[in-house]
Amino acid sequence: MRASRYLIATQKETPADAEIISHQLMLRAGMIRKLAAGLYTWLPMGLRTLRKVERIVREEMDKSGAQEVLMPAVQPAELWEESGRWTQYGGELLRMNDRHGREFCFGPTHEEVITDLVRNELSSYKELPANFYQIQTKFRDERRPRFGVMRAREFIMKDAYSFHLNSESLNETYQVMHRTYCAIFDRLGLDYRPVQADSGAIGGSASHEFHVLASSGEDDIVFSTNSDYAANIEKAEAVAPAGERPAPTEELKEVSTPDKRTIDAVSEFLGIDATRTVKTLLVKSEADEDGNAGLIALILRGDHTLNEIKAENLQGIAEPLTMATDEEIEKAVGCKPGSIGPVNLTVPVIVDRSAAHLSDFVCGANKNDVHLTGVNWQRDVALDRVEDIRNVVEGDASPDGQGTLEIRRGIEVGHIFKLGNKYSKAMNATVLDENGKSVSMEMGCYGVGVSRIVAASIEQNHDDKGIIWPDAIAPFQVAIVTLNAHKSPTVAEAGEKLYEQLRQAGYDVLLDDRNERPGVKFADMELIGIPHRFVVSDRGLAAGTLEYKGRRDTDKQDIPVAEALPFLVNSSPRKGL
Amino acid sequence: MRASRYLIATQKETPADAEIISHQLMLRAGMIRKLAAGLYTWLPMGLRTLRKVERIVREEMDKSGAQEVLMPAVQPAELWEESGRWTQYGGELLRMNDRHGREFCFGPTHEEVITDLVRNELSSYKELPANFYQIQTKFRDERRPRFGVMRAREFIMKDAYSFHLNSESLNETYQVMHRTYCAIFDRLGLDYRPVQADSGAIGGSASHEFHVLASSGEDDIVFSTNSDYAANIEKAEAVAPAGERPAPTEELKEVSTPDKRTIDAVSEFLGIDATRTVKTLLVKSEADEDGNAGLIALILRGDHTLNEIKAENLQGIAEPLTMATDEEIEKAVGCKPGSIGPVNLTVPVIVDRSAAHLSDFVCGANKNDVHLTGVNWQRDVALDRVEDIRNVVEGDASPDGQGTLEIRRGIEVGHIFKLGNKYSKAMNATVLDENGKSVSMEMGCYGVGVSRIVAASIEQNHDDKGIIWPDAIAPFQVAIVTLNAHKSPTVAEAGEKLYEQLRQAGYDVLLDDRNERPGVKFADMELIGIPHRFVVSDRGLAAGTLEYKGRRDTDKQDIPVAEALPFLVNSSPRKGL
Repeated sequence: MRASRYLIATQKETPADAEIISHQLMLRAGMIRKLAAGLYTWLPMGLRTLRKVERIVREEMDKSGAQEVLMPAVQPAELWEESGRWTQYGGELLRMNDRHGREFCFGPTHEEVITDLVRNELSSYKELPANFYQIQTKFRDERRPRFGVMRAREFIMKDAYSFHLNSESLNETYQVMHRTYCAIFDRLGLDYRPVQADSGAIGGSASHEFHVLASSGEDDIVFSTNSDYAANIEKAEAVAPAGERPAPTEELKEVSTPDKRTIDAVSEFLGIDATRTVKTLLVKSEADEDGNAGLIALILRGDHTLNEIKAENLQGIAEPLTMATDEEIEKAVGCKPGSIGPVNLTVPVIVDRSAAHLSDFVCGANKNDVHLTGVNWQRDVALDRVEDIRNVVEGDASPDGQGTLEIRRGIEVGHIFKLGNKYSKAMNATVLDENGKSVSMEMGCYGVGVSRIVAASIEQNHDDKGIIWPDAIAPFQVAIVTLNAHKSPTVAEAGEKLYEQLRQAGYDVLLDDRNERPGVKFADMELIGIPHRFVVSDRGLAAGTLEYKGRRDTDKQDIPVAEALPFLVNSSPRKGL
Repeated sequence: MRASRYLIATQKETPADAEIISHQLMLRAGMIRKLAAGLYTWLPMGLRTLRKVERIVREEMDKSGAQEVLMPAVQPAELWEESGRWTQYGGELLRMNDRHGREFCFGPTHEEVITDLVRNELSSYKELPANFYQIQTKFRDERRPRFGVMRAREFIMKDAYSFHLNSESLNETYQVMHRTYCAIFDRLGLDYRPVQADSGAIGGSASHEFHVLASSGEDDIVFSTNSDYAANIEKAEAVAPAGERPAPTEELKEVSTPDKRTIDAVSEFLGIDATRTVKTLLVKSEADEDGNAGLIALILRGDHTLNEIKAENLQGIAEPLTMATDEEIEKAVGCKPGSIGPVNLTVPVIVDRSAAHLSDFVCGANKNDVHLTGVNWQRDVALDRVEDIRNVVEGDASPDGQGTLEIRRGIEVGHIFKLGNKYSKAMNATVLDENGKSVSMEMGCYGVGVSRIVAASIEQNHDDKGIIWPDAIAPFQVAIVTLNAHKSPTVAEAGEKLYEQLRQAGYDVLLDDRNERPGVKFADMELIGIPHRFVVSDRGLAAGTLEYKGRRDTDKQDIPVAEALPFLVNSSPRKGL
């Protein structure tokens, strides 16, 4: 491509409303433009990268044996009513009426449509397993769309849905998809981790997320220092501390703690470490048959934080997790939230594993401005129900017993999920098994955030000059910058010659033949993030050389003109290889 | 691809609700499935063809110098209000509100979005011309969606928009697009015609449609027998008959024509040919400053039909064309519609060129059940305004003076259009010209109905066994059908070997390894329309041959196993060549 005939829509200024670096750089590099909140046009430069991501995803999905289909974006409400999601889905579902007043939505996902298709097309176990995917525009009406294409309303997703006679077959395809996703992210050239994820809410039995590691990531992901264990923070198990709980040494005592209502304030006032205290949170319980919900107390060590997903998944606790109000606490316990404690508490108590391991600890006395010290489980208060309800912290023991945990930030770009028969049962998607018996199919679903990957890659790979693309998804692999080509026919000719040579060798090349100052051209090519750059100048040509600089290089180097192609072949695979 | 691992969703029965052959065959061949009215899922077999069409369109657009972008499907109402189309567009525009109550539509076309983009990105004549295209899902909420993907509500379109400093530059790009469209349809392997089209309504200055010829087409397209002249019926000019109008020979006479109110009835009753009569149609005139509209009479030769587009484009006639009601006619003329005529008519008269060439003709007398014979222009009635207001008929002289006209049926699959400055003016999309003066850009727009092409190709290419694909867009180019492979390892092995050999040579091959009867497999491959078929059988292998049959061939032929590839190379280009 010749830059003079291409939309190079770079910007010097950082756009004021772009909060994260990928959003800023995608705007500045002329990859996207905002049409409205959460709606972006992909300019030619951005679309090139998007299409390369799509292509890699498609090739690996095809290799896995999945079959590509294309379902409508607009979906009839009737199917969502069958699955129960028309009412459940909430505000993110963009609903609309057609000219005849019938209800539709712009699909945020396609479980209903594919299940409807498969129940009509497949009837025998002999046709299973089957895995169908599409790469398609989706819409989620985010309440607060932001971060550019990272959290847009309209976005491009690869979604796949597999169908099985039984869970063994689902497990096999799930493993194939796990490997396929690794192959995709390997080829994309990204530093990523597959992590165990929570699957409680949708009722599936297993789930993994694929995260691109980036310090700006919104999710905490957890690894073992000494094993393959990896999970997102919601899922990562906090194991019980090793050893027996120490025996009590102190007497139970009431102490006055005037106006001390936080762990920090109480610890400081009493001159003890927060790890010697517990905090007590009150949440709503599940409603009974008459619809009445009570409260449940959750006890955590003072320095730990509640893992809401773990708590929500526990029996007896209302879903979604709902904290008790100050009024409800006052009514049930007779004190303000900062003074609750398990001793003589009249609501059921669930104790976190680490809190359960304490002896001689401090807690609220269920009276305002009073705490208890020297509290001990079993001696002073029963210890009936111990559960894992906290977030892990760095240094915790790994759940697999090997090493300790580290926490990094990640951006979720893929998710694989065993759905079980949630949709097939609700929508009566059955096949006949070997014995002629009708059974609900087992299902898996597998998503990749295609447009989000572009942003995630930038979050992971950039510097103060701009984007640094992995070779595989760079809009162009090579930039050729000609200096003063408008005055020097020699430079113009050498630029064209190199351009043709590299193109014919299979590279995506951008020839920057614009009549701009060298500094402008260099800055643009670095901002856009093209991995390899050759400079063609009169001075170089006089010495028979081109100047080469890799996007991550600190130094330039002179390469003999005839060596340019072999040098590049050594540094970078060609398009499609 | 192995058929045993692929969704071959063929059906024997013709679906009851599919009216046209392409819709029937796309359902029967397992290419598409209906989700809801006008909404179709593309199954793997259909999507392969769709993607090949897309690829050819993309490659030719890229070759033309157009730059690919991707604009959001969901568009904010504000932009459509700027262009005035939010209120004009009518029921086909699918409107919706987001969670904050803001108005959006699912884009049926993208003039507003691209004009908004370009007015923000381009500022100088030096950046022009520019041509941006996308291949994207669109939605038009057709009142009565039907004919499968031929007239679906959700469909895939290639739309391009070009921007220019002046109309000379627009003309150049328009010609480039004309050539590009010819290249696209040539590569698709379709019998098509570019034809002049009417552009009056949108106010543009030129327009061509590209039609795939098929007897089932909805549009009439017109060609000269002796020249390149081609137009759609709306646009095709009906030239004035050659020579002078004959001199009058008859006297004007009133004749009683009881209950004769159609041209046929009057002609038969009077024993004359319909070509000797005229018919008089009354339509509404444009409203005057006070909003009052009168009537205008349109006079046609009895055997001719009104061309509503031509009439609507005439000065003084209301747009859209509106026929007068019986009551309005009664009030203005004093008779029923079947008895009107130009003599002594009190409303303005526009006479078609052919009607104006008549002498001694018959027309209504503006009294019920009375006609006039021997009527002559100028002697009996003024002839002030003669226009071209009729549809051409076969045998008419070609407007370019070379040959006569033929009429065929076509399916519109492409449309190129000079928009002028309609959108750039309404939306203030300007650049600075060479003199630093701000000017509205000239625009062109260029559409290809990508999903429609798939159906149009089938309308043009099928027989009683099923689809006949052009090589370039067949889902698979070659079918290998193995006979009794489940019992014969020799056949299975030879099938696999041929499959690998042809695949490695660059062909898209479907190996029909299903455990089905030969008749079922043959019928499926023919229904699906794969251009080339090899049969691998024990009997053939014993003689060292494979059986070959082209989809259009009537006879099979035996080909030595070793000759299969060279034979194929001779008959068909490889994928992507």
